[in-house]
Amino acid sequence: MIVLEDALTLLLNHAPLHCNTTRLPLAECFGRILAEDITSTMDFPPFNRSPLDGYAVQFKDIIHASAEHPALLTQIESVPAGSVPYNTISSGQATRIMTGAKIPEGADAVVRLEDTGTVNSQIAIWTAEKAATNICSQGEEIRINEKVLTAGTLLEEGALGLLSMLGHANPLIFHKPKIGILATGSELLSPSDPMKPGKIRDSNSYMLLAKVLKAGGEPVLLGRVEDNLSSIITKLSAHPNLPLYITTGGASVGDYDLMEKLFQELQVPLLFKGVAIKPGMPVLAGIWKNSLLMALSGNPAAGSVSFEMLITPLIRKIAGLRNWKHKKSTVKLWGTFKKTSPTRRFVWARWFVKQGTIYAEPLSHQGNGMLKSALEANALLEIPAHNPIIENGTELEAVLLQL
Amino acid sequence: MIVLEDALTLLLNHAPLHCNTTRLPLAECFGRILAEDITSTMDFPPFNRSPLDGYAVQFKDIIHASAEHPALLTQIESVPAGSVPYNTISSGQATRIMTGAKIPEGADAVVRLEDTGTVNSQIAIWTAEKAATNICSQGEEIRINEKVLTAGTLLEEGALGLLSMLGHANPLIFHKPKIGILATGSELLSPSDPMKPGKIRDSNSYMLLAKVLKAGGEPVLLGRVEDNLSSIITKLSAHPNLPLYITTGGASVGDYDLMEKLFQELQVPLLFKGVAIKPGMPVLAGIWKNSLLMALSGNPAAGSVSFEMLITPLIRKIAGLRNWKHKKSTVKLWGTFKKTSPTRRFVWARWFVKQGTIYAEPLSHQGNGMLKSALEANALLEIPAHNPIIENGTELEAVLLQL
Repeated sequence: MIVLEDALTLLLNHAPLHCNTTRLPLAECFGRILAEDITSTMDFPPFNRSPLDGYAVQFKDIIHASAEHPALLTQIESVPAGSVPYNTISSGQATRIMTGAKIPEGADAVVRLEDTGTVNSQIAIWTAEKAATNICSQGEEIRINEKVLTAGTLLEEGALGLLSMLGHANPLIFHKPKIGILATGSELLSPSDPMKPGKIRDSNSYMLLAKVLKAGGEPVLLGRVEDNLSSIITKLSAHPNLPLYITTGGASVGDYDLMEKLFQELQVPLLFKGVAIKPGMPVLAGIWKNSLLMALSGNPAAGSVSFEMLITPLIRKIAGLRNWKHKKSTVKLWGTFKKTSPTRRFVWARWFVKQGTIYAEPLSHQGNGMLKSALEANALLEIPAHNPIIENGTELEAVLLQL
Repeated sequence: MIVLEDALTLLLNHAPLHCNTTRLPLAECFGRILAEDITSTMDFPPFNRSPLDGYAVQFKDIIHASAEHPALLTQIESVPAGSVPYNTISSGQATRIMTGAKIPEGADAVVRLEDTGTVNSQIAIWTAEKAATNICSQGEEIRINEKVLTAGTLLEEGALGLLSMLGHANPLIFHKPKIGILATGSELLSPSDPMKPGKIRDSNSYMLLAKVLKAGGEPVLLGRVEDNLSSIITKLSAHPNLPLYITTGGASVGDYDLMEKLFQELQVPLLFKGVAIKPGMPVLAGIWKNSLLMALSGNPAAGSVSFEMLITPLIRKIAGLRNWKHKKSTVKLWGTFKKTSPTRRFVWARWFVKQGTIYAEPLSHQGNGMLKSALEANALLEIPAHNPIIENGTELEAVLLQL
């Protein structure tokens, strides 16, 4: 039996290296992980530019402008969007510019269109307010040679916008690691099979498929197989060289035999056997050729906790994500927790905020009804080993899984 | 100018109805939205079953069992996983059963394997502890005719596991709504174009593509187009009958003309023009045939706030999601907020928890450098209109966008 954090460290130390990389069109990159650092080759904005529609002027010409006594200027040019000004502004002159346009030479202020009018074909400026600050300076967003994005970044709206802005139409990204999922158990039916006495439909394959996708992996369903060593080996061997294989079933006390025999038969050295948490204690992990092989309990309540605490961070790391760690938080217990245990426990819970304080409420279905809890759960609440009855409002640690 | 909440109500009232539905294999359903209610046609478990490996017995036979004085029983049957017991237990008898197996008739307790041994070919029971509660009762997880999943549920691990368990190999899901995105502006280049004087690369198309995907829509990039009415209409008309079209650019004061002309030209009745928030004020919305047409500012800082506050919930609703609303929360300001404004303001921020209290810290790049903030932001912090300087620790409302 090993401490959870030590188990994770062992797995990470033995994790297969990052996946290969490829270039994809930007429109297909959402949710993928960047495999290169992105450095800007120019300043943004590349020139002093206007943040609004209006007139570029010399500030000294308009400093006393008011509605009663507007400053009157001569328009020398109008710069449509996408064009550049050609003429230098002198005193008494103004150039009409659009949002984003380059400030003409000679100008040091921009008056927004709403603060201007026309008087006898001259431009009337009614106020100087804010005009001197209506300039976005060259490089104020991004400096030339600035590292804007780091390898390992998850590509969402900000990153996609920046890649486009910096001219990276085909960024380098990591392939998703393929993760094999095999459900073992002679009692298992597929979801399309009719029910039979003594059988249950395999829910683990699809629950784990979802968790692999969420963690950034590409699930490979290896199917269902009866409790038979050679059948299990055949199924695992049908998809060689995946970085990680996960089996469910045959890993609990009493069943341990089967999976231990599998590890022996495959000559897989054990990294650990059993993790000191509840549920989720039954886990075998070892190194099979260049892959990791992990056997989880067939009980969805146990398997899902083992997966969340060990395999989600592992897959995120293998997938190349820089921030692969769970978001942890101190929360206050909502309600009283009465179940005591000699083992450190993780409980499905729902976190929420009430008047600036974050609470977590354990969900009622924890054991075999766990799939129903998983519909609502957005956190795993940690109950320390040898806990007494825990009172309402007690501070506990939680892993926040979703909003 | 319209209040944000009223604008959203108008949009939702005029939103095109849910998308069509289709059936997909379960393995392709992750992240999709269920389009049917799912009711169980049987109890789960379908029979009283064992939660662990061990021996099914009559509790009265073992009630005084101890390590010194084990209860000795005769094994009458061994039920492998996936099989059912055939023999009824009588006093003095035990049946070996595996996790998940049906409890044999006559038995009312299960002793875990670790608490048993063998003495002279008899089964020795060393303790009665917990044995009477080691039974999962028929229907304790799910009752026959219970509604387990509701249409509008996002399909993640819990739901996929339940669908599999209940035998729904091809659940009914909503098609993703296709959302047209058109970037207008004669200054725009594609990310693969070399830079030219006065031009910028279009970052909005890819930023909005990401936001549409996040909200559950299927983005349709309509491209980039110069500030020219007939070109814009040609681009929009090339993909008819999308439920929602979003344009960027030509919607700010001064530019308003262009998009207002577009709405007139297309004979689109306006739902509203301008929303009383900052940034993100410039928004035009109207009904174009059976679609919604929305024009956002070309400024990423403005367009992204308008999108997040109006279009994200709209797309989630159109996509069929039952919980389409943002997660809002009261948070405490981290730092001091000094910028005052007569308009209600939304500021990109990072929320985090410190000793059970949730804080939000405004990010430094709010204006044109907003894409850099979007990399870090996980919330939009609301600053009320006519705010004074806001002190550290003040309670504010925030929209939580991510963990």
